[in-house]
Amino acid sequence: MTIAIIGGTGPQGQGLALRFAIAGVPVALGSREGARAADIAAELTARLPDGAAVITGHDNVAAIRAADEMVILAVPFAAHEATLRALKPHLAGKVLVDIVVPLSPGDPKKVSMPPEGSATEAAQALLGDDIPVVGALHNVSARTLGTLDQPINCDILVCGNDLEARRKTMALIRRLGVEAYNAGDAQAARCIEAITPILIRINISKEVPFSHAGIRIWAPEH
Amino acid sequence: MTIAIIGGTGPQGQGLALRFAIAGVPVALGSREGARAADIAAELTARLPDGAAVITGHDNVAAIRAADEMVILAVPFAAHEATLRALKPHLAGKVLVDIVVPLSPGDPKKVSMPPEGSATEAAQALLGDDIPVVGALHNVSARTLGTLDQPINCDILVCGNDLEARRKTMALIRRLGVEAYNAGDAQAARCIEAITPILIRINISKEVPFSHAGIRIWAPEH
Repeated sequence: MTIAIIGGTGPQGQGLALRFAIAGVPVALGSREGARAADIAAELTARLPDGAAVITGHDNVAAIRAADEMVILAVPFAAHEATLRALKPHLAGKVLVDIVVPLSPGDPKKVSMPPEGSATEAAQALLGDDIPVVGALHNVSARTLGTLDQPINCDILVCGNDLEARRKTMALIRRLGVEAYNAGDAQAARCIEAITPILIRINISKEVPFSHAGIRIWAPEH
Repeated sequence: MTIAIIGGTGPQGQGLALRFAIAGVPVALGSREGARAADIAAELTARLPDGAAVITGHDNVAAIRAADEMVILAVPFAAHEATLRALKPHLAGKVLVDIVVPLSPGDPKKVSMPPEGSATEAAQALLGDDIPVVGALHNVSARTLGTLDQPINCDILVCGNDLEARRKTMALIRRLGVEAYNAGDAQAARCIEAITPILIRINISKEVPFSHAGIRIWAPEH
């Protein structure tokens, strides 16, 4: 089952493409410029071990066409609305997995949420109820994704108004060997997207001895 | 240094009182009815090991007077505004640590944030800038706090507009043997408070094999 990654030439998109291909999921990498996506796809392919699924490069519309169902949106927030408007006519029958975080321009330690409450809710409002939007993968750093010799040990919170789309997204994410949790409907994205700037603050703090942190769900009887 | 816990007779307040007393921090437990607080304080004292600090019971105003500086607010959200209005004249010179989560009435898997954005921001707006409000301890379950033979292994996110008050709160929380992270100004409470209903959803889900989950900050090079 091929997935598309729109805005797949950015650091987050590239890291996800590598991880999914290694997990055996073919990836159609999308960019506004198909040639650039093809170049990046070739670079990423050179990093793949034997037996990985293919990464191919396309313009965004062709990437969506290549996807069986799941389309991951990985553009910067500044391009979020315009990208969704342009791609809406091509998304019928797909599930849009929105990983975009509305970081404040000029201060990545804060969010500036859109009027709808979160990027996930804004995307759902724009696309309409026939195209389910799922928020996920906001809190895993590009560095963690791209460090292929280490497992992704943080957890993924998944939200969206369509339960079936949420379940499909959790199943897809679990192929990466990480745990995905059902965090409820799209309103939960107001929280989940806003975890990222808190992690960025912790990561750049001189008071902690690490960077590229994620979150885990911890349980006493786990 | 004595701390006060307002609404200290609820499950969260009781658990915190036990943990702080065991850590050597004297606790003045507050309730609207001083006699009830005194009864609960006696019950909790019976559970304390030798060498613990004292837990005493008071009406809320007397509990604040007994506190050197740190006052923890642990009432249900329904009593949040009225309690703060009543206690404001007595809070000069204190730091208010607000642990209240605005869970939706009838659905604890969601938040219903006040117009200010979060309980922490509502408290800061009500108390005015001279009384610093710090949001913390939202995501640790009463059961985890009260299970005294196990360490508290989740992390605590701390936010508020006054950096010095945040630092004092982090130092106090670290006395419990848990890690506290600086999550930024009070706006971060919109995220941190909303993590609690996501944890409640996960905890009551039949799809996960645990309950009373918290969160941890996970880092690759930790």
